[in-house]
Amino acid sequence: MESMNENWETISNTKRQGLMAAITREWIIPADIMPPETQGDVTTFPSKSGWFTERELDILATNAAKILRYLVSGIWTSEETNCLSEILFDEAIARAKDCDLYLRNHGKPRGPFHGLPISVKDNFNIIGKDSAIGMTSLANKPVTYNSTLINILLETGAILYVKTNVPTAVMLPETVNNVLGRTVNPLNRSLTPGGSSGGESALISFGGSRIGIGRISSNPSSMYRHVLSSTFCWSISPLPSTLWVDWQEAVSSVNGPIAKTLDEIILYSKTIIDQQPWFQDPKCLPIPWRPIEPKRHLKLAVLWHDGVVTPTPPVARALRETVKKLKAAGHDIVEWDPTEHKQAGILLRQMFVADGAKSIRGLLEPTKEPFRPEMSSYENSTELGVHEMWQIQAERSELQKRYLDRWNAIGEVDGILCPTSPYSSVEHGKFTYGGYTGVYNLLDYSAVSFPCGISVDAKVDIPYGEHRPLSETDVEVQSAYNVSTVEGLPVSLQLVARRLEEEKVLMMTDVVLQSLQRPSNSVSSARSKL
Amino acid sequence: MESMNENWETISNTKRQGLMAAITREWIIPADIMPPETQGDVTTFPSKSGWFTERELDILATNAAKILRYLVSGIWTSEETNCLSEILFDEAIARAKDCDLYLRNHGKPRGPFHGLPISVKDNFNIIGKDSAIGMTSLANKPVTYNSTLINILLETGAILYVKTNVPTAVMLPETVNNVLGRTVNPLNRSLTPGGSSGGESALISFGGSRIGIGRISSNPSSMYRHVLSSTFCWSISPLPSTLWVDWQEAVSSVNGPIAKTLDEIILYSKTIIDQQPWFQDPKCLPIPWRPIEPKRHLKLAVLWHDGVVTPTPPVARALRETVKKLKAAGHDIVEWDPTEHKQAGILLRQMFVADGAKSIRGLLEPTKEPFRPEMSSYENSTELGVHEMWQIQAERSELQKRYLDRWNAIGEVDGILCPTSPYSSVEHGKFTYGGYTGVYNLLDYSAVSFPCGISVDAKVDIPYGEHRPLSETDVEVQSAYNVSTVEGLPVSLQLVARRLEEEKVLMMTDVVLQSLQRPSNSVSSARSKL
Repeated sequence: MESMNENWETISNTKRQGLMAAITREWIIPADIMPPETQGDVTTFPSKSGWFTERELDILATNAAKILRYLVSGIWTSEETNCLSEILFDEAIARAKDCDLYLRNHGKPRGPFHGLPISVKDNFNIIGKDSAIGMTSLANKPVTYNSTLINILLETGAILYVKTNVPTAVMLPETVNNVLGRTVNPLNRSLTPGGSSGGESALISFGGSRIGIGRISSNPSSMYRHVLSSTFCWSISPLPSTLWVDWQEAVSSVNGPIAKTLDEIILYSKTIIDQQPWFQDPKCLPIPWRPIEPKRHLKLAVLWHDGVVTPTPPVARALRETVKKLKAAGHDIVEWDPTEHKQAGILLRQMFVADGAKSIRGLLEPTKEPFRPEMSSYENSTELGVHEMWQIQAERSELQKRYLDRWNAIGEVDGILCPTSPYSSVEHGKFTYGGYTGVYNLLDYSAVSFPCGISVDAKVDIPYGEHRPLSETDVEVQSAYNVSTVEGLPVSLQLVARRLEEEKVLMMTDVVLQSLQRPSNSVSSARSKL
Repeated sequence: MESMNENWETISNTKRQGLMAAITREWIIPADIMPPETQGDVTTFPSKSGWFTERELDILATNAAKILRYLVSGIWTSEETNCLSEILFDEAIARAKDCDLYLRNHGKPRGPFHGLPISVKDNFNIIGKDSAIGMTSLANKPVTYNSTLINILLETGAILYVKTNVPTAVMLPETVNNVLGRTVNPLNRSLTPGGSSGGESALISFGGSRIGIGRISSNPSSMYRHVLSSTFCWSISPLPSTLWVDWQEAVSSVNGPIAKTLDEIILYSKTIIDQQPWFQDPKCLPIPWRPIEPKRHLKLAVLWHDGVVTPTPPVARALRETVKKLKAAGHDIVEWDPTEHKQAGILLRQMFVADGAKSIRGLLEPTKEPFRPEMSSYENSTELGVHEMWQIQAERSELQKRYLDRWNAIGEVDGILCPTSPYSSVEHGKFTYGGYTGVYNLLDYSAVSFPCGISVDAKVDIPYGEHRPLSETDVEVQSAYNVSTVEGLPVSLQLVARRLEEEKVLMMTDVVLQSLQRPSNSVSSARSKL
């Protein structure tokens, strides 16, 4: 209420000042050691700046499973793991001390994530903190209840220490909003870290978090991300939700872990499912973790392009080279026909703006906050009637059935290998196509995005010459391809399993990584079963 | 198209004549042995009329598991099991002969339902047959593809021999429509068999089917019916669906078996799930049958009333007596607080008419068919915008969360025991309240309706005197209670488990039946595990 008469710009300023004030003064990096604005890649800052101690650098470079072993054995204390970035919570320090005390007093850890810092995307509710989702009318309004997942994380002993930035209303493929501005890619600050989990992505990429929780995201990067089928695990929102993407139900609202190693992804997903979240969240399915044997010879269908946008040269090359390596390793590769993808994209767009953006407008109006220019498709949308919406839902179900039939027709295919995005990354404001992940959100399939080990190489990844564009969007995407800005950036690919085959998609990723001679890390090489 | 200029009454006549013509002439029961119109209970007709042979009566009285054993061992032939009622399909006879031939030639059955006749509700598509769902514009228009479940049944070797009547658009608690008129209750023809599975219910009650497939249904009766959680098993509709109740997704469209014994319900549900329907239907969850040990001591919460409509005297008495017997058998009984039920009913009604009945109107207009008077809430509804619909969906999710929290707060409660309906049954046109089943459709919980062994007794089940009504609907329901018409009718109660606890709700029903000293049948007494 108090913000009714406040202008959105005033609120944005207050919020930014509040964020800075929440950082302990001695932890603020002095201006004189900050990297110059001309330096694109800032991921080397932690190791090169001299700002961090050796011990701190050790912690930043250690995977979550090892951190947990060190914490539980007492080699490290929970309080010491303060790898906090944008926002520092006093609560995190207090809770870390409490974890250490608990371990001393009880001789056992608080839970499977005892003392492990986990970063979460802004749209998760944490009592006493904002869930502003990039909207000024929600800024400086601490919420009064936790999201279900937050309660579960607290029960496991995890330490919540930071929430990460999202685009306005969590609905853009870049992370930019009127409250906090734009999140940049630490690998090259002129590029976007993608969205809607861009804050999470940037933080992990920089080394400020080992495991972060986001939701479906189009941004390729050097991280692994596991997008679970909608109902397998936990819903993102608290109930009641203030988040309109949870009210609409035609496209599932999903979430999952983001981390630098596959093992951390598996650790997180298994641990959360072991908490039986379905007893707390009516949207979760009562499906326990289902161990799965590695399948040494996979049959994968490769989607070279989705019929709408051609992958840019480095992504196309990464896919070709990966397929070549997989074939050499004895896997069976067939082709996936992209027939359904174009319609999937159309349906997704219709569904997201089906309320004529009334939900978003209702959050913009109290502070007279304008629509961001990136949201023109929302601003210009018209509300549908329920009857028309039902037709769209029927078309979506029919498409799901055709995709399933296509999968069955190939015969015993384990998964689909495809780009995560047509981009390695792209300059701010130019991320216009998220169809490669969106289609699996619409289908509600399990997917993992993984760095395939190939990076952009300006010498070979030259822009297409006589490219025949698949669509107008394809023209836009290709003309936004600027090899000099993305030079050296890692390329991610995506593995997709059927709906709710969470363990299988993780197993397949592990097998694929072995075939690419890129073990997910030392722990995984000894793994016989997920 | 050809029916565009036809009047709905003409179409209805043609359809009725077609149905009669589809019955082999010598199977039509002569008028002189038909029961007089004044005879309410016609369930004794098969055994008393002399129309059926001993062998036919034997078959009608045999449970499905035994029929299957006789068929597979060759004691009976598939062709012989022609317990067909309203409609006879030549295809069924041909298929039965084919099953017999297969058994002779291959020395093994066609599948787990080899030769077993199974009746299905009209809204399942069978190639070459109508799915008119009681609407003249869909009558005499054979469909060109099967529902997923129909394909699965055919793969199991089942014989489809009849589709059963439903109310207009499958959306009323009584079975009446402008195509085929009204379905009556064979236990007393002045009463309704309920809806929307009234045709199925009447057929099984009469002895014309051992296992029928319906969907959620408010009609209590002498039958067992298992209502599965929405996504556990198979979706009812073909994809693409012509059935609007499948386009709307806020309330799940569910289905399940109806039969005279619990064992047949279990046989059916387990067999279908063992077919892994999720590989054929994108809406099915990949959850295999999960065997469950019987729990000898249950903790059940009893819902005496739902805060909206008081159960009529025989139902209230049946619930009291059942609770008394369960306590005597050592089960723990607590009370369920009905706080959420009223809102659940309001949300359900809003959701069903959210399109302003545009879908139904679109099916009525081609033949100028009028709305039936029972459908006034549809006729008078106004279409909502998507934004408003999303608010309703959010309220529904929030209610689901509160119901779950209430369940958890009781502590280790296994299930809810409640009426299936406020009625034992009720006279035609007076079935006005379906909230006792509707709430679990909204919550998407697993439920079994079972005859509790208590029948209406006019001597004790006298109308309430100084009854304080819970609502206006309660007044209607109590004033429609006419003990002389329902005298002797069996009363059903409902057991409810959490979402997707299909095997558990069946196990609980078995345990409850044992406690009521009403074993579900001879097979079950030896059952140690479902």
